[in-house]
Amino acid sequence: MIKVLLNGCSGKMGEVVVNASKNFPNIEIVAGIDKFPTEKYNFKVFKNTSDVDIYYDVLIDFSRPEALVDLLNFSVKNNKPIILCSTGYSDEDLKLIKEKSNIIPIFKSANMSLGINLINSLLKKIVPNLYENYDIEIIEKHHNQKVDSPSGTAILLADTIKNSLPIESKYVFGRDGFSKREKNEIGIHAVRGGSIVGEHDIIFAGSGEIIELSHTALSREVFAVGALKAAEYMADMFYPRIYNMEDLLGI
Amino acid sequence: MIKVLLNGCSGKMGEVVVNASKNFPNIEIVAGIDKFPTEKYNFKVFKNTSDVDIYYDVLIDFSRPEALVDLLNFSVKNNKPIILCSTGYSDEDLKLIKEKSNIIPIFKSANMSLGINLINSLLKKIVPNLYENYDIEIIEKHHNQKVDSPSGTAILLADTIKNSLPIESKYVFGRDGFSKREKNEIGIHAVRGGSIVGEHDIIFAGSGEIIELSHTALSREVFAVGALKAAEYMADMFYPRIYNMEDLLGI
Amino acid sequence: MIKVLLNGCSGKMGEVVVNASKNFPNIEIVAGIDKFPTEKYNFKVFKNTSDVDIYYDVLIDFSRPEALVDLLNFSVKNNKPIILCSTGYSDEDLKLIKEKSNIIPIFKSANMSLGINLINSLLKKIVPNLYENYDIEIIEKHHNQKVDSPSGTAILLADTIKNSLPIESKYVFGRDGFSKREKNEIGIHAVRGGSIVGEHDIIFAGSGEIIELSHTALSREVFAVGALKAAEYMADMFYPRIYNMEDLLGI
Amino acid sequence: MIKVLLNGCSGKMGEVVVNASKNFPNIEIVAGIDKFPTEKYNFKVFKNTSDVDIYYDVLIDFSRPEALVDLLNFSVKNNKPIILCSTGYSDEDLKLIKEKSNIIPIFKSANMSLGINLINSLLKKIVPNLYENYDIEIIEKHHNQKVDSPSGTAILLADTIKNSLPIESKYVFGRDGFSKREKNEIGIHAVRGGSIVGEHDIIFAGSGEIIELSHTALSREVFAVGALKAAEYMADMFYPRIYNMEDLLGI
Repeated sequence: MIKVLLNGCSGKMGEVVVNASKNFPNIEIVAGIDKFPTEKYNFKVFKNTSDVDIYYDVLIDFSRPEALVDLLNFSVKNNKPIILCSTGYSDEDLKLIKEKSNIIPIFKSANMSLGINLINSLLKKIVPNLYENYDIEIIEKHHNQKVDSPSGTAILLADTIKNSLPIESKYVFGRDGFSKREKNEIGIHAVRGGSIVGEHDIIFAGSGEIIELSHTALSREVFAVGALKAAEYMADMFYPRIYNMEDLLGI
Repeated sequence: MIKVLLNGCSGKMGEVVVNASKNFPNIEIVAGIDKFPTEKYNFKVFKNTSDVDIYYDVLIDFSRPEALVDLLNFSVKNNKPIILCSTGYSDEDLKLIKEKSNIIPIFKSANMSLGINLINSLLKKIVPNLYENYDIEIIEKHHNQKVDSPSGTAILLADTIKNSLPIESKYVFGRDGFSKREKNEIGIHAVRGGSIVGEHDIIFAGSGEIIELSHTALSREVFAVGALKAAEYMADMFYPRIYNMEDLLGI
Repeated sequence: MIKVLLNGCSGKMGEVVVNASKNFPNIEIVAGIDKFPTEKYNFKVFKNTSDVDIYYDVLIDFSRPEALVDLLNFSVKNNKPIILCSTGYSDEDLKLIKEKSNIIPIFKSANMSLGINLINSLLKKIVPNLYENYDIEIIEKHHNQKVDSPSGTAILLADTIKNSLPIESKYVFGRDGFSKREKNEIGIHAVRGGSIVGEHDIIFAGSGEIIELSHTALSREVFAVGALKAAEYMADMFYPRIYNMEDLLGI
Repeated sequence: MIKVLLNGCSGKMGEVVVNASKNFPNIEIVAGIDKFPTEKYNFKVFKNTSDVDIYYDVLIDFSRPEALVDLLNFSVKNNKPIILCSTGYSDEDLKLIKEKSNIIPIFKSANMSLGINLINSLLKKIVPNLYENYDIEIIEKHHNQKVDSPSGTAILLADTIKNSLPIESKYVFGRDGFSKREKNEIGIHAVRGGSIVGEHDIIFAGSGEIIELSHTALSREVFAVGALKAAEYMADMFYPRIYNMEDLLGI
């Protein structure tokens, strides 16, 4: 049984992790940490890391970058791996993470979804083989409250494609007018509407055939599952370095 | 048995019509007309309308606008309906079609695909009911040799949506940067790649649900089937006016 | 401002309705009723209908069939329309609803999703025109815990198609072996996996083209939105009869 | 410039190969062989292999199994690689191919589509990592004249999945009734309708996310492109053995 300590357990994502953990028979959340302790769980919730008096195997963090320094010191003190799922780290934060990864194993991924990381890995493998005979375009769909277009994930995927191409390519964010597609274009189309959680399609259109890799996020649960898979992967890890989803997927 | 006379029978579309007609047990192509007569069919091919000495019920034209004047006069002389499937008519041509439609029944549609016309009709019905709670976006996909973006069909569909909305709307042909979708946007996304024949998706994204109407063209056969359905519809028609696919669909 | 009284407000769907109502500027939930009153809302929650001492325009019920008799009597007493969103009514219940619909306007629909009802309405219109040239198949997708296959909604849609066909048709729930599709088959394919909320695709496959009508449910919010749209529609209704989503959609 | 000799050049696929070769600037079809010589091409067409008096680098065969013995002997005599795209070989034929592959390089693949082979390769890589957290289902769509269900390609893909799973799995060809999906099911759904050329979707449905790999065949061109890519790959090949699409894709 893997004993997980969950930082940020009272927040929305904390709750999603707790619920998702019920589908992981080999994982037990033995305690939580949160500035706003809650009594809704059947495990103890500590207010600060300094209060934790319980044994655990791996710490999952779904809180805020401000907690980073304290969490890293706590993990080093306990000599335990940590899984960082917060977002928005500063350059200084990233430097600190790098530094501490010489002492303990740290898991950190730009996107905690297994599926997006899987597709990103596959792109690295197939794009060099396909680009010559296939035109590559991306369609992403998100809800109507999203401010940035295209999505960060679409850009992540497009950058992977760009970096896997032997030719210089350029992004095209829509088409209007008269001109034929150039071979080195990567079309990126941002659809916005309703409450769509998140879809990403990568289209390889060739002569007489189309190949598509698609990812649909149904709910935040996808990030919780990613974190719990990371917990399984990191629980026994002892070699200190930064690990990410691609290491976990092993593809 | 409906006796069809096929103008432009030696061309690519002529051949597709002849093949598709084999699936219409109530239709017989009794003769063809073509400047370049062919012997590949089991019906007679005349070089000019003036040579035609055979009885027919309805004429299908898949040739070029230059043939229009002659074809209309020929149809008026025979007092028979005509189905115009050529494209690129001038304003003068359109005026002439209008004029002759006072004498004989004429079938003419911007797009001969049953499916696109069906979807266009449905949009007129559902958009007024849906716009308030759903965001509307269009994705179209075509081959990498297509010069115009978005496709004429996408613009046809978008115009139908725009005209069915009680509010002033605006087209957005792609998104790149930071700003939330406005309620009156209609996103139109033109994907280009490989040898895609033609796809059109209309997305209604609401709160907690997505409705989609989609059309995929697999081959030119779709236009032949539309013409043959029109032949069935027009064969017995005697009231002179211009008919189109929406009349045929009766929706 | 439409004043809504919400029965079953403490349950899961009650909470979803309260959240969704924030996007309806012309709707105010003025009070709730629930055996287990909650204090989490900024409106009063009564334990029983007999306690209600507040004015309202329309009652939405998301509770259980057991509450039906009491709710109908309460609505008749107040001479106000009622929207029934509970499921699982007995034949006796349905008889009672019919009876009371002679006195007050009652809204009741097999499925509260606007989208599914819209598609169901469209099918009635287009199937008679399309069946001759198109083969019709349904694909539905749901999570891996769903017990019944195909889904109730898929059967609702298939029945609508069957009843709109001029020929006798038969359902085929999968294919394995050697035999060509017969013209009167309606294929219904039940995909099960993961946590898929609910997708329904109706495919019209013709010669050279495919038309698709698709519905994707993203969350329970879809049913809340349907109920709130019904509240808008019913608030001023005075003619007593049973109303449903098709009346509301007006298609 | 790769000099291709095309056996079966007068047939339908021969014509498709000739047209597709125009998009391969480094490939020249220097001559054809066909029992029914045609004059429609701008290269010489021989009636028999024994008539061929021209230099070539690689032979592509799109004819019939009956031609196999002669073609293999001809290739051995010229010490040139051969690409076998005919289908329906007997066990004896396969034995002979194996035998001759000790002398010359032979290319032979169950399916000449690059895309299907690519997806098949990817499945081998990702299924072992995904099966634990994702349910796997296949949807395939073909025209209404197809006799076998599911398609041979769907079975190829399903077998690859089955062989990549660490658990014993079973195929389910449709669902009707009351029972939950079991973890080791692989659903295979055969949609039939209209003139659909061929679609294959592999769905990985997980908790909160769906990953899909899809392939759409638009026309026979896809097999011609596969053969021409094989010609590029095999032109300089000298090591004698049987090669296939996975070797070519190198994934």
